[in-house]
Amino acid sequence: MGILKTSNGEIETPSFVPVATQAVVKTLTSEEAKAAKCQILIANTFHLHLKPGEKIVKAAGGLHKFMNWNRPLMTDSGGFQVFSLGFGRDSGIGKISKKKGLVKVLLGQQPQNIKIVDNGVWFRSPVNGEKLFIGPKESIKIQEALGADIIFAFDECTPPNADYEYTKKSLEKTHRWAAECLKVKNPKLKDQSLFGIVQGGKFKDLRIESAKFIANLPFDGFGIGGEFGDSKNLMIKMIDWVIKELPENKPRHLLGIGHPEDILKIIKSGIDTFDCVMPTHYARHGIAFTSEGRLDLNKRCFLNPPAGGNNPLDKKCGCMVCQNYRRNYISHLLRAKEITALRLLTFHNLYFFNSLVEEIRKKIKRGNI
Amino acid sequence: MGILKTSNGEIETPSFVPVATQAVVKTLTSEEAKAAKCQILIANTFHLHLKPGEKIVKAAGGLHKFMNWNRPLMTDSGGFQVFSLGFGRDSGIGKISKKKGLVKVLLGQQPQNIKIVDNGVWFRSPVNGEKLFIGPKESIKIQEALGADIIFAFDECTPPNADYEYTKKSLEKTHRWAAECLKVKNPKLKDQSLFGIVQGGKFKDLRIESAKFIANLPFDGFGIGGEFGDSKNLMIKMIDWVIKELPENKPRHLLGIGHPEDILKIIKSGIDTFDCVMPTHYARHGIAFTSEGRLDLNKRCFLNPPAGGNNPLDKKCGCMVCQNYRRNYISHLLRAKEITALRLLTFHNLYFFNSLVEEIRKKIKRGNI
Repeated sequence: MGILKTSNGEIETPSFVPVATQAVVKTLTSEEAKAAKCQILIANTFHLHLKPGEKIVKAAGGLHKFMNWNRPLMTDSGGFQVFSLGFGRDSGIGKISKKKGLVKVLLGQQPQNIKIVDNGVWFRSPVNGEKLFIGPKESIKIQEALGADIIFAFDECTPPNADYEYTKKSLEKTHRWAAECLKVKNPKLKDQSLFGIVQGGKFKDLRIESAKFIANLPFDGFGIGGEFGDSKNLMIKMIDWVIKELPENKPRHLLGIGHPEDILKIIKSGIDTFDCVMPTHYARHGIAFTSEGRLDLNKRCFLNPPAGGNNPLDKKCGCMVCQNYRRNYISHLLRAKEITALRLLTFHNLYFFNSLVEEIRKKIKRGNI
Repeated sequence: MGILKTSNGEIETPSFVPVATQAVVKTLTSEEAKAAKCQILIANTFHLHLKPGEKIVKAAGGLHKFMNWNRPLMTDSGGFQVFSLGFGRDSGIGKISKKKGLVKVLLGQQPQNIKIVDNGVWFRSPVNGEKLFIGPKESIKIQEALGADIIFAFDECTPPNADYEYTKKSLEKTHRWAAECLKVKNPKLKDQSLFGIVQGGKFKDLRIESAKFIANLPFDGFGIGGEFGDSKNLMIKMIDWVIKELPENKPRHLLGIGHPEDILKIIKSGIDTFDCVMPTHYARHGIAFTSEGRLDLNKRCFLNPPAGGNNPLDKKCGCMVCQNYRRNYISHLLRAKEITALRLLTFHNLYFFNSLVEEIRKKIKRGNI
């Protein structure tokens, strides 16, 4: 339990950090993101560099003004795209993968669509196919122009199928890039905090080595990135390895993780903030998170409920969607391919996730956790 | 200038009637439709019959409760789909067509995808391809189950390329169906008004004949439907032919027409209400209506404005979009294919249309029109 202070306001931790990849929480307005209790959002350096480009955002007065969001903002560094557009895309996997029989990523290998070199990464622009180089310096300069309150060091997010040798070699690069990020960061931009990222894959010695190395650099906070093996239990164990090495007086962010069933464990492990696309992504596929579990509103049972069974998404929820709309209307909108369905589900899901973490904060305050 | 009273509240006329085809103003919530000054909405009998079906709407307590809209509602009859899924689709045209060299629709001809018979129309369901019959009785029963405040008689909306003989024969059917609609309407549903529809194409004698016939039936109000020739001037002339024949003490609705540049003329012609997809449809294609005219927010000039030139959509507009967001952000969202762009433009455009008509009402009150 704590307070994270930025020049755009404070956030109470632990806090969920909803994702606003392209400077918008998909389907919502910034006013709605506030109404859904979002304290802070995380936007994406790689995507905003492509569209609309950091120059346009800077000319508009920075990301906060551009998107009319006057609360804190993070930008990730583009390091996740090294994975998601690289080996992640090649194998069709995410940061936690239970997929059996995956071909190992070995030392010296390169992903099919990007090239990872000593001083950064050659991407191809999904917009026009042009080659596009991002290294630590480029990432920091883009993030400085975007102007989020908290920015991240550029790293390589390694895939769950990387072997020890690949991961070890990648980690050396990530550490070199971390130091480079600190070096190139404009010291005049005092309002912008730079967080270092711990990598090291599923390998205990590499994770601890990485945490020690990154903790020793003058970062303002820390991200824990990369793959988390093949199970949630392993993930929690991995957080434990790392967190002991990170100074307690600096914030710790878990990158890209936050399923509702894991949130309490993650927080108990010592994580202050964590971002995850889950509530917004699932909403756009028709899934509501509720106190009764996940509901798939595409199902016909929600369109045509038994008498008296046409409830709001969650009877226990105080959000404006649950106050105003019933499941069968949202189900109808989904089936009729109406955009409004995606909005209603996105709003509710964010409110649900944020309320879940708010409840945990209250319990921590009361000493119940 | 007047007041149209319904059991779900009053609306000040003249009034624009935004379109909520599938029980939703596309991209918006009902709360937003109110905030955008919508007094009344028009939903679609044909589409709601297919999805979710009137039984589900009725079980939810009717259309108002289903969509959480506590202001007046209209449903059209499905007659427009006789055109849009029939000859309209065959020729790729709308209700006003300047297309030259169109093959005439002659007496006895049938559209390719539907079949118009004496007692109604055989459609094919776009949902599952099944045959689907809607006649006057079916249309009224569906509309009664949906429960809008104002419902329309089932008619054939004739195409702009129909010849005199076709239009005359079709008109006989529309008149027969009008009487049938009155006959089958449940007299106990006193809160539901039934409006008759004047057809007759571009032919003066047929239009006047139709207006006289429909005016003589005990309808609660009147719709003016069908094609409006090949020009806006002709349209205004056609309204003039008809409106003289319709009793002044009953409301007159113009079906499917309402470009901003025509609104004043339409109102001066004696029209009380009119519906049009334009503000919502164009919004979803990136077009904003403003006091400076139409803006295509897809254009790069809006993404990258000159210094000091990054304005709201309309500097003179008081809507929440213009208070909170600038053109370059909306342009970015559009280019990044973010749904939020469509919402912001839809909200603004509706507010703009409704404000335009509100201004006209004020001028009428002051005696300036």
